[in-house]
Amino acid sequence: MGGDFGPHCIVPACISCLAEYTSLHLVLVGQSSLLESLIARYPGVDRARLRIEHAGEIIAMDERPAQALRGKPDSSMRISLELLRNGAAQACVSAGNTGALMALSRYVLKTLPGIDRPAMVTAIPTQAGFCHLLDLGANVDCSAEHLYQFAVMGSVTAEALGTVRPRVALLNVGTEDIKGNQQVKLAASLLQQAEGLNYIGFVEGDGLYRGEADVVVCDGFVGNILLKSSEGLAAMIAGRIEALFKSSLAARMVGALALPLLRRLQGELAPAQHNGASFVGLQGIVVKSHGAAGPEDFKSAIRRALREIEEDLPQRLHGRLGEHLL
Amino acid sequence: MGGDFGPHCIVPACISCLAEYTSLHLVLVGQSSLLESLIARYPGVDRARLRIEHAGEIIAMDERPAQALRGKPDSSMRISLELLRNGAAQACVSAGNTGALMALSRYVLKTLPGIDRPAMVTAIPTQAGFCHLLDLGANVDCSAEHLYQFAVMGSVTAEALGTVRPRVALLNVGTEDIKGNQQVKLAASLLQQAEGLNYIGFVEGDGLYRGEADVVVCDGFVGNILLKSSEGLAAMIAGRIEALFKSSLAARMVGALALPLLRRLQGELAPAQHNGASFVGLQGIVVKSHGAAGPEDFKSAIRRALREIEEDLPQRLHGRLGEHLL
Repeated sequence: MGGDFGPHCIVPACISCLAEYTSLHLVLVGQSSLLESLIARYPGVDRARLRIEHAGEIIAMDERPAQALRGKPDSSMRISLELLRNGAAQACVSAGNTGALMALSRYVLKTLPGIDRPAMVTAIPTQAGFCHLLDLGANVDCSAEHLYQFAVMGSVTAEALGTVRPRVALLNVGTEDIKGNQQVKLAASLLQQAEGLNYIGFVEGDGLYRGEADVVVCDGFVGNILLKSSEGLAAMIAGRIEALFKSSLAARMVGALALPLLRRLQGELAPAQHNGASFVGLQGIVVKSHGAAGPEDFKSAIRRALREIEEDLPQRLHGRLGEHLL
Repeated sequence: MGGDFGPHCIVPACISCLAEYTSLHLVLVGQSSLLESLIARYPGVDRARLRIEHAGEIIAMDERPAQALRGKPDSSMRISLELLRNGAAQACVSAGNTGALMALSRYVLKTLPGIDRPAMVTAIPTQAGFCHLLDLGANVDCSAEHLYQFAVMGSVTAEALGTVRPRVALLNVGTEDIKGNQQVKLAASLLQQAEGLNYIGFVEGDGLYRGEADVVVCDGFVGNILLKSSEGLAAMIAGRIEALFKSSLAARMVGALALPLLRRLQGELAPAQHNGASFVGLQGIVVKSHGAAGPEDFKSAIRRALREIEEDLPQRLHGRLGEHLL
């Protein structure tokens, strides 16, 4: 029921994914009458693989996490997570209130042993391909130990998603040992002692986009600012170039060639919107789709969940955390 | 003597500025024999307006600030700042080691009354024009009181540089009151009580580039990451578009049209490199040019210093700080 467009976006995305993945089963959690009426538009759908679970309450996009946690036992978000916890589902995908989803996920699913706080991670494009950035905003006040845990989780996630011996770096204001705030300097000394982790040291903001690391670790405040400012900057650059390409007839013809690339770039640079972001460190798979996601974006989030199910990411994380955590 | 190219960049920039501003006087501080030999290449220069002050020591770009402070009484950086303190100069411009310049500035010039820590500020482009962002990296661990002081200094600086009733915002991970880390939330409550300051609340990373505020305040860790990641992203986008425009003959012709704009955009998005950044909150004008600055970039830093002299920025700050500071 979450996101700016609710089931009007999510139902078409689900119908499309069911056609694409013939072994996929989906459970839609929310107001059953609304969901039934939306599904009725697709008479060809295989209802044996599309089940509706009624939920009488909705968590609003601006609702406080604490309120969502205490006041709404029958929210679609909470019932989804309970289905996951009880084994009736293998992953939960939501476009709803991020803070509420994180709070409910921690409460219903619990974190993996050794993990204090789950983190939010997504892949962002770089000159060399992409890197996994975490945390993206779930944890705005982080200790060195939290950053250390994020590094371990990021490394295991990158490995599970196909990167061999991922290079793990801490995001910092310089690359020398003396640089950084207290938490980052302390996290560096913890990571230097960690065995089995390919820790390469500090990376700066420009180094991230040059592709100097496969996993970039920061607190959720910094990660959120970096991600959102990058989205804003990409939009600004695309807008300026678009304006230039409309300035004359010749330029307009040129623009016809260049705009598709610029639009694609802009899309790549808003990865949380287009690809979904994972909550890692929980006893279950939770993927957060952007609130403003359209059907194609929500399908990407479902695909991300499928990939994490195939790789059994939480179990894999659980197995590796014992090796790394203090 | 600082920066990646030292006087080989700085001397040509100075010669050019002397021609451009006929009332400008410059003092070059550094190894006099090297400076004389570089100046000798410009026989037409008005030596009455270009003086050399010998300095026997150089602070290396990777030298620790503490070492620069204690170990090198005759560095070009220190002697420059002493000339400023003693009234023999009205501003100091340097392309040298940022950390050392900040430490020496604080030690030699002292901060203005009521200011604990100077901040580094520059103007970055937005969809609406530009905004003044501070701190850019001078202070990586900041309390709410420091953020409050940065807000006051940013507002006065923006006013001095021509913005009427600048809209001041705190950079945050959301715009609701409950969002943010502890320092930011506490700084918000201090700013809400401040009179005479046009405080508009929180701005997010994308809102900054949409131009929602004229002054954006954050700690130096976040500001540095935002600025450098923006530079890196702009370079990456420019590189990708350039590659596209080389992919065919037709595209190459198109590219000839588009590249100058893209290059200019890239330049605008690396403002610390191209325009210089000011240290505010000191009893004197100090402008930091990027270490990798070329002659044109260093000229921009000199121009910024000239503007701050015209506006008598430290005095103006001093006058306004009394009204605002707790």
